[in-house]
Amino acid sequence: MTDPYLPADAKTRAQARALIDSARHGALAVLQPGGLAPSVSRISLATDAQGMPVSLVSSLAAHTAALEATPACALLIGEPGAKGDPLTHPRLTLHCSAQLIPRGTPEHDALRARYLMLRPKAGLYADFGDFRFVRFAVADGLLNAGFGKAVRLSAEDLST
Amino acid sequence: MTDPYLPADAKTRAQARALIDSARHGALAVLQPGGLAPSVSRISLATDAQGMPVSLVSSLAAHTAALEATPACALLIGEPGAKGDPLTHPRLTLHCSAQLIPRGTPEHDALRARYLMLRPKAGLYADFGDFRFVRFAVADGLLNAGFGKAVRLSAEDLST
Repeated sequence: MTDPYLPADAKTRAQARALIDSARHGALAVLQPGGLAPSVSRISLATDAQGMPVSLVSSLAAHTAALEATPACALLIGEPGAKGDPLTHPRLTLHCSAQLIPRGTPEHDALRARYLMLRPKAGLYADFGDFRFVRFAVADGLLNAGFGKAVRLSAEDLST
Repeated sequence: MTDPYLPADAKTRAQARALIDSARHGALAVLQPGGLAPSVSRISLATDAQGMPVSLVSSLAAHTAALEATPACALLIGEPGAKGDPLTHPRLTLHCSAQLIPRGTPEHDALRARYLMLRPKAGLYADFGDFRFVRFAVADGLLNAGFGKAVRLSAEDLST
């Protein structure tokens, strides 16, 4: 089969970065623990100082247990507008490895400060004992900018 | 760990059905072929005559090859509104098995007729040679209706 993906260029790199920088939430795909089936759920998103996606997740959520068992995961970001075919709006798939950050570490404190600056309403639950930050180390991405406009991006293409 | 999910009741069953019936698109989580890592992408959605989710997918899309290799998948449906915390808006995770429908079969023709009635704009590409219908047989679901309102639903809870 012909590779249907186009190589990244300056425009598509910038488009992908803009989607990451503006994402307030995304769909997180994980492997269900003890099985070989995926699951998917909505999570809040911001970025760390390096521009990588970060979330704040509860131990009570199924996705957190899944990420503890298998860090390999994927994020879908970029929302369709209210009008028109939802598949004409750009969106980005990121293949990632999730890193759960232990509370009480300098890394936690730095992420907490930035996250609450970017997402002040998360202050309502950020300090609940069951919440932890998770950073998504991006391996590669697929930008879909509409029919026939699919672009494969490397981690380097996606760096700030 | 205490099970954080509530049992379904008439109200949450109706809420889940309304999300399925009104979904025009969703996030599809699949297993990447040849690996143990998930991926996730946006797909269009409608329903079949039994109220189960249906999409129209291209063989050129990575998710189609993934579903051919491993039918186990998951759908996230229900969009956040433009305002407020995205995690306060209801959304539904469906754990499914994907059934790709061969073109030129009576099943294809029935799904095509219904899909184009519900999504007339899909007529632009429904008859392209690389497109097929896929039906998602739902095993179970998780409704998240906001903080502290997570509900586990069986396939029966989700039937019409």
